[in-house]
Amino acid sequence: MADDKKLTTRASDFSAWYNEVVLRAELADYSPVRGCMVIRPDGYGIWERMQRTLDDMFKATGHRNAYFPLFIPESFLHKEAQHVKGFAPETAVVTHGGGKKLEEPLVVRPTSETIIYAMFAKWVQSYRDLPLLINQWANVVRWEMRTRLFLRTLEFLWQEGHTAHATHDEAEEEARKILGLYRDFMEGWMAMPVVTGQKTEAEKFAGALRTYSCEAMMQDNKALQAGTSHNLGQNFAKAFDLKFQSESGDEEYAWNTSWGVSTRLVGGLVMTHGDDNGLRIPPLLAPTEVVIVPIWRKEEERSRVMEAADRVCRDISNWERRDPNALRVRVDTRENLKPGAKYYEWELRGVPIRMELGPRDLDANQGVLVRRDTRAKQSVSLDAIAEEIETVLETMQDDMLSAARDRREQNSHRGAVSYEQFKELMEGDGAFVYAGWCDGEKCEAQIKEETKATIRCLPDEEFRSAEAPSRCLLCNADATTEALWAKAY
Amino acid sequence: MADDKKLTTRASDFSAWYNEVVLRAELADYSPVRGCMVIRPDGYGIWERMQRTLDDMFKATGHRNAYFPLFIPESFLHKEAQHVKGFAPETAVVTHGGGKKLEEPLVVRPTSETIIYAMFAKWVQSYRDLPLLINQWANVVRWEMRTRLFLRTLEFLWQEGHTAHATHDEAEEEARKILGLYRDFMEGWMAMPVVTGQKTEAEKFAGALRTYSCEAMMQDNKALQAGTSHNLGQNFAKAFDLKFQSESGDEEYAWNTSWGVSTRLVGGLVMTHGDDNGLRIPPLLAPTEVVIVPIWRKEEERSRVMEAADRVCRDISNWERRDPNALRVRVDTRENLKPGAKYYEWELRGVPIRMELGPRDLDANQGVLVRRDTRAKQSVSLDAIAEEIETVLETMQDDMLSAARDRREQNSHRGAVSYEQFKELMEGDGAFVYAGWCDGEKCEAQIKEETKATIRCLPDEEFRSAEAPSRCLLCNADATTEALWAKAY
Repeated sequence: MADDKKLTTRASDFSAWYNEVVLRAELADYSPVRGCMVIRPDGYGIWERMQRTLDDMFKATGHRNAYFPLFIPESFLHKEAQHVKGFAPETAVVTHGGGKKLEEPLVVRPTSETIIYAMFAKWVQSYRDLPLLINQWANVVRWEMRTRLFLRTLEFLWQEGHTAHATHDEAEEEARKILGLYRDFMEGWMAMPVVTGQKTEAEKFAGALRTYSCEAMMQDNKALQAGTSHNLGQNFAKAFDLKFQSESGDEEYAWNTSWGVSTRLVGGLVMTHGDDNGLRIPPLLAPTEVVIVPIWRKEEERSRVMEAADRVCRDISNWERRDPNALRVRVDTRENLKPGAKYYEWELRGVPIRMELGPRDLDANQGVLVRRDTRAKQSVSLDAIAEEIETVLETMQDDMLSAARDRREQNSHRGAVSYEQFKELMEGDGAFVYAGWCDGEKCEAQIKEETKATIRCLPDEEFRSAEAPSRCLLCNADATTEALWAKAY
Repeated sequence: MADDKKLTTRASDFSAWYNEVVLRAELADYSPVRGCMVIRPDGYGIWERMQRTLDDMFKATGHRNAYFPLFIPESFLHKEAQHVKGFAPETAVVTHGGGKKLEEPLVVRPTSETIIYAMFAKWVQSYRDLPLLINQWANVVRWEMRTRLFLRTLEFLWQEGHTAHATHDEAEEEARKILGLYRDFMEGWMAMPVVTGQKTEAEKFAGALRTYSCEAMMQDNKALQAGTSHNLGQNFAKAFDLKFQSESGDEEYAWNTSWGVSTRLVGGLVMTHGDDNGLRIPPLLAPTEVVIVPIWRKEEERSRVMEAADRVCRDISNWERRDPNALRVRVDTRENLKPGAKYYEWELRGVPIRMELGPRDLDANQGVLVRRDTRAKQSVSLDAIAEEIETVLETMQDDMLSAARDRREQNSHRGAVSYEQFKELMEGDGAFVYAGWCDGEKCEAQIKEETKATIRCLPDEEFRSAEAPSRCLLCNADATTEALWAKAY
């Protein structure tokens, strides 16, 4: 049950607000294991809808699911030189099994490139076996010291796609295709706008040729890296001897991609849409889209209102058809809570539409719909209620994306920004800053050191400024590229 | 690609046959990590359909999914005395994280009672919070020494349900309800008949009050424990201080149940239905229900046949509607394989219906359907092909269950069986033997020691013999119950 104390406001302490919303909306809870969280049914319900949607998208683009071992021999991690540098320091290591010390320690997978490409090498012989397009839904473990619910936990749930191709260009096309698919999902379903682009050498995935990412702006103006897609080149193919016979008969190394999104997205959803009353879930991902709150005072009203609520619920949820696109509706039948307390709770939990149904509404053959995003109320005839709800939900889904995009643009800075101004922005309210960059790792590192801001990406063309910045933000030398700077989760 | 060598027959070496089918039908593969397998897309596709079906059944009975940590503090396992005895010897232990030795080692969950009931204790205060009906889809690890693909692996995938109730009787009802749900799934979807019943004290789950199970007979007449459902009593509630305030205001310990099925079911499906030509998948769980093999010799036939195959595929799969109940069809367009080689491969992979489509079939506006279970052929007009396929698939689903049930009954022995006859049966072809038992752990242990057969369950009433056996199989004393004996996986 939600507790009645007012939430900390976003303006007063965004981080405290976030934790309170996650805990009180019962999305997740702390566990007795340091850094590991429990995902509660209301949080898992959002993740399940994300999974289902992404899984359909992966399958529609030819990918198939498989499952690879949780444990990876420690030696595997060492086969790709950059990869081990990136991941070895943060692994959990199994040293004992069945009461005995193991000959070779096993690492709990922090990501599965090494074990998966070792298997690909066994399965791929000829160009006919390519492309090989595999996805895995799994848990992974990274030994983080500072953890936050959903955003950074020792263990998290994710999907990791792994593919093998005959040529560099096909792998590049795949990596970009998935980036676009992620963006479609984040904008279309999560109503969370993202900037896509390429990571710098310093920020790319350990072992990749190139990394692309989706970067979203949270309500504290920090960036959340919401998904990454890597062109791995032939780095892992060479490390794991993943070769194939080409159409012309030559033996060649395959080209790989890998890509992933995780339960972190649930945190991104909260920080994109939540308000001072709690969570707001975009309709397409809401486990419950409509909650009906029956209202009565006298006992004789009770059965009439309850019956009507049940009837409306059945009608609009079309539950007999078991249609996966049917409205997801529930009736709050609890008798120990007053309507006001129920409103408060469902707002906290972020259900998109609340429908109030009382005796006078029934007399007028209507229900009152309240939108969670704007809290706007409207009375709707019960004869047309399903259609009206559909319309409101669609509008809400679009409005939430627009609102998030407007907010991002209001907090984005383009054009000439001096380094002093930049530092002030980063010390103050934060921002997305599009600025010139000389392409020097030194400037990148110094800015990070001094401001904690990093290059989130070298944005794709559609996100670049109309007039390309001409000078590097720090050294003032000629800019070779435009970079998106922000502090990040 | 399947290899052409003939499969070992079931009669000559059932165990070798099983491994070959699993590997060559590409359900799973060995991994470089001892005892851990890789589930390949064709195997994972079956598991996904199992998951989806069970998940719908769990949700329809009020359960919700959640996710709990992979790691469990070692001390948690020790809180329930029987539980630690059962599971501690087979755990994998993480001793190092982030490069440092941990203060308290973490166990990789072998099952999640301890961590889950620790959380329940935090969430449950009042009878109003009960029943709490939770399910988790997860990987678990048990350090097995002798492993078999799907049947017994170090790591496996499963679901584990965990519930808390206000009374013993509600918990008992839940445990039995889930047992029935499992049976419905195994018989209705897997076409795998099961005997349900209660485990003996010696065979029950470590920490349970009572364990119920579904026992299926494989084609080598051995039993597969396909699913278990436990009434845990108040054992874990007491160990983890899971208390609630009852309606009358008293503080009471909750009553728990837990229950699970795993990827082992995929192995059970193979061993129930496979034949000497390979896998046979019951239609309801087949990732592909129909494969269309276009046949042509001359180039001018090729485009005509291919176009027709595509059209038929689109028509019968209704792919534009994205209907989850639409037929799952694919066309085998490979040009480097002859039709015969394709037939051989799809039989090995167990696709329920093969549809042959050649120029002469098209002239006659028909296709040829071949059932995988009986290999019966029939020509069907293309105008009625979708309906005909539906009918054949439904018949096949029923026939596969009947065939498996007939086989089981032919290899089940009831009535007076002497211990000598019993030993011969167990040394020979194996069997399900329903026999009297004096309820003595000594007889149970001695029979197990001498024959490797165990009491699979004390069968539920509908499975008991019309005339209850009167004497104990071993000691000849008065039988108090009827027991189902068999060797088991």
